[in-house]
Order: sequence, then structure tokens, then C-alpha cells
Amino acid sequence: MKIKTTSAFAPASIGNVSVGFDCLGLALEHPGDIVSIEVGNKPGAELIDLQGDKGELPIETEKNVVGVVVQSMLDALKRDDALAIRLLKGLPLQSGMGSSASSSVAAAVAANEFLGKPFTKRELIPFAMEGEELACGAPHVDNVAPALLGGITLIPSHDPLEIISLPYPKNLYCAVVHPDVAVATRDARAVLPESLPRSISVKQSAHLAAFVHALHTNDWELISRSMIDLIAEPKRKDLIPHFNAVKSAALEAGALACGISGSGPTIFALCKGKTSAEEVVVEMGKIYADHEIGNEIYVSKINSKGTQLI
Amino acid sequence: MKIKTTSAFAPASIGNVSVGFDCLGLALEHPGDIVSIEVGNKPGAELIDLQGDKGELPIETEKNVVGVVVQSMLDALKRDDALAIRLLKGLPLQSGMGSSASSSVAAAVAANEFLGKPFTKRELIPFAMEGEELACGAPHVDNVAPALLGGITLIPSHDPLEIISLPYPKNLYCAVVHPDVAVATRDARAVLPESLPRSISVKQSAHLAAFVHALHTNDWELISRSMIDLIAEPKRKDLIPHFNAVKSAALEAGALACGISGSGPTIFALCKGKTSAEEVVVEMGKIYADHEIGNEIYVSKINSKGTQLI
Repeated sequence: MKIKTTSAFAPASIGNVSVGFDCLGLALEHPGDIVSIEVGNKPGAELIDLQGDKGELPIETEKNVVGVVVQSMLDALKRDDALAIRLLKGLPLQSGMGSSASSSVAAAVAANEFLGKPFTKRELIPFAMEGEELACGAPHVDNVAPALLGGITLIPSHDPLEIISLPYPKNLYCAVVHPDVAVATRDARAVLPESLPRSISVKQSAHLAAFVHALHTNDWELISRSMIDLIAEPKRKDLIPHFNAVKSAALEAGALACGISGSGPTIFALCKGKTSAEEVVVEMGKIYADHEIGNEIYVSKINSKGTQLI
Repeated sequence: MKIKTTSAFAPASIGNVSVGFDCLGLALEHPGDIVSIEVGNKPGAELIDLQGDKGELPIETEKNVVGVVVQSMLDALKRDDALAIRLLKGLPLQSGMGSSASSSVAAAVAANEFLGKPFTKRELIPFAMEGEELACGAPHVDNVAPALLGGITLIPSHDPLEIISLPYPKNLYCAVVHPDVAVATRDARAVLPESLPRSISVKQSAHLAAFVHALHTNDWELISRSMIDLIAEPKRKDLIPHFNAVKSAALEAGALACGISGSGPTIFALCKGKTSAEEVVVEMGKIYADHEIGNEIYVSKINSKGTQLI
């Protein structure tokens, strides 16, 4: 008898995208996490296999985001199917690339398929957010939404939850460097200012509005000019070694803009076209190589599909 | 001999438009100010006639915004043409409808035509802003830009000055009520919070971004949902008698959204279509009539042309 298995790949995502602190996110094509669901031996969710995390994530079902997400789906459906979960981490942990969101979303999509699609894709968001809450201490949606839906997403409201998929130029690429240094999401939030001068708040919001306009009009120069971060970057950049040098290198190599991915330490740059992104990412990685800091580099188009069954 | 005269009509404008404090504005079709320029008797700008201000504006050239604007244009050109200025105020003073911006912009456009068009329309903005600075104590562009250019304008940056003309549904109308109560711009600014909680700042900016997306996609419901003001309205509404009642009446009568025009006391509502705006404005005006407060009501499409020679 063939054992029924459903698997889903959920991509990395970039939260904030510099100009949209806590309300904007975009999906990369890779790296990503894979979650597989198969028939288990006992009722409920059970995490039976965990790979690629270098032993750093909990294997206990109730402490791992994928276990929490799948169990919460079963609870909502009042079902007690036996679901065995396998998680293959492709994303580096605590990288600021939406690692826990990726696992949560992959788990939700794989389990939903296994259970006969009781939920639409958007209806999976609250379950994925339970995973995020376990991992980050807060129900974050700015990584969950793009990882699930793909593209660039704007979240104007959490209650009720509203997600807007923004348009973007087809040729928009990301150059991404993840240095092997640890910045915990909790630490990265601790340095944020609790309040902002009114003038800064106005500037930041006007730039986000200009960015949305630029996406609608394919205005590359305005994308570049509007990508400022007056909220998180001034505080968080000190947590990331050589941030200024990497940003300068990216811009000099032709990036449209460069900033911190989510809470860091990953740094991303937006680029016009694949060739530009490839040139940019080399220069970004070189800064860390010169300082003998291990790093991974990625070049990716904006992921238009989000999480996919595989 | 026919005396050469150039005249320009500049419309009222709504600053902030609720969701875009200090960075968003839109132009109405009426009311507006008219400025005429003719040959004067002595070198430089001279205000020779002032009507419609109920005696409240200074007639001295150097104290009136139109005199300041025209003289600054002559200074920039290093010319000493004799320019006599006539100002006909159609806009109520200190109404929050961009009264000084309207005068400033009409003066700039009329004088520019008289002088042989040395400046483009956008190049007139710095001169018009000198008028605004005289009137408001700060160089405001969120009324100047829409009054001059028409439409809905977003100002993401003041230095360098950047003005974005946003698209909007053709059928977007404004219902406007100006109650005969005085709110000075300076007083209205004094009640504003100097700083904002980060969470409020994030919400406000995400709503502005959603509003821009809604304008691009003709999404009436999203226009309605995104038009929130967490910065000025909570503080300024107490300066405007019966604000809550007027807002409730507008929304009950079918307005998409309702808020304070600029620094008030004028209250505006966005409406889908002329008929809706006419129904809404009657209900708004009725609140003031019921309380025996004099008021003027206006219904206007978004003005697509801005300031025009007449």
C-alpha cells in the first residue's frame, strides 16, 4: 500500500522591506522550508522528523511551530486524525528571513491538503500566526502573508486582518546576504523606539505611500528614493556587524536600495534585473568574507506563487 | 489703449485628507481666489485692491501673501517691473480650506503669465510657499501643491521637494461644510502630539499606503476603510463644535469617509458620485443649522486642472 504524503515548500520572506515597518513583506523564491504530512500512529499532530536545523529547534511537537500549527488546525476542525509531521529546514534560523513563518506556513498548507482542503489559503493565516506567536512572542503576519501568498504584501489592519497584494515590476530582484552572526528577534525588538517624533512618522508614512505608488507605476527611481527606514534601521544596524559597509557596497554596485531583512542580521537589496542582483550580492558577501565572517548569499526574483505543494 | 491684465483662479484645497497628515492634499473645483495682475505705477509688486476678505486681511503689499509671492518672483528674476495686484477672495479665511495657499498660487500663476512665463507651473511652488510661510509660519506645501496642480497630491519629500500626482476614480466627490467658527492654524498645530507611539505610527502609515493602493485600483471600499486619522483628528476634533455629530451624519448619509479639512474647522467627506455628495452635505450642514451656527456647504468633484488662467 502506498503511504499518502503531502508536502509543501514555503519560501523565505523579507519583513518590513525597509520602508514598511511591521506592515510590509515580500517573498523570495528560495531558500525555504519543506513540511511533509503523513499518517501517524496516534491521534493528533506529531513531529517525527526534523532535519537541517543543526539541532537547534525543539523536536517536541508542542514546542515546535509546525506541531502547534497542525494541532491548532485539527482543534479548529474538531478532528483527531493522526498526522505525522516531517520538517526539513532550508532556512537559517534567527536570520530575519522569516524562518518560523516559513515552517508555519508550509505546515499549514501541507496539513490542509492532507485533510482534504477544509480551508482556503487565506484562511490558513490565523493558524500560521499561532506558530509565529510561539516563535517570536507576538503574532506576526508580515512574514506569514508573503510566505503563504507570494509577492509583496501590505497589512493595513490586523483586526480585522486585511492583506493587500501589491503589484511590482516583473524584473524586480533581491540580493540577500545572511552573515553567520546571531540576532534574536526579541533583542532586535528591544532596541526599537517606543515612540517616534511626529515629523519622522509623517516622513516614514509618506515614503511608504510613495513606494506603493512606485510599485503601481513601475517607477524604478521612485522605488529607490522611497525605500527609507527611519524606524528600525537607525537602531538595529548597530546589532549587525559591518552593516554600513555592506549597504554602501550594495548601492555602489547598483542596487536600488538596501536595508535590514526583518529583524536581521540578514541584509537585502532590491535590484533591477537578475544581472544587477548577481553583481550586487557578490559585493555584499565580499564585505563579510574580507572580515572572515561566514555568510550565505542568495539572488531571487520576487516569488509570485508563495507556498506550493510539491 | 487696452491695459494688459492677467488673471488666475486658484481653488480651495483639503490638506491632510485625514489619512495623510502633512503629506497629502486634494483640490476642489470651488470656491477659490482670483488674482489679477496689471501694469502698476511704480517698480515692484503693489497690492492695489482687495475684496471679499471682510476687511480681515492686510492691504499692505509686504504683509499680504500675494504681495510677497509676486515680489519674490521679481526678485528671483532680478526684474523691477511695476506689477499692480488685485485679490478677490472667494475662500473663507482660516477655514482649513487652504485660503492662503489659494491666494499665493493664484498670484504666482497670474504674475508668471504677465511676465511672459519665465517659470513652469512646478517652478512656481517655492514662490507660493513663501506666501504660505507668511500666513502660517511654516512653508506648507500640502495645500499649495493640489491648488496649483489639481488632483490628489502626495509629498514624500520636502528637501528636495517631490510631488506625486496620484490617480483617483473619476466619480470621487467631496462634500464640504465650513462652519462660521474660528480655528487658527497656529492653535490647531499647538494641540498636535509631538510624538506618536510606534504602533500608532505604523498603523497610520499602513493606512496611507492602503489608500494609495485603493486610488490606483478604484477600490471604493478600501478608500473608505483606509481613511483614518490617528494623528490630528483625535486632538483637533475638540476644537470644532459638533464634529462628532457632523461626521456621524455624513457616514449615515452614505459618505465613504469624513474628517477635518486641514487644520479645520471645515469638515469634508469623500463620496461616490455627485448625488451621494449632495445628500451627504445637506445632512452635514443640518447639524450646524440645528445649533444655529452659520455655515457654508460645498459639493465638488476633485479638481483635475488646478489653477487656471481666466
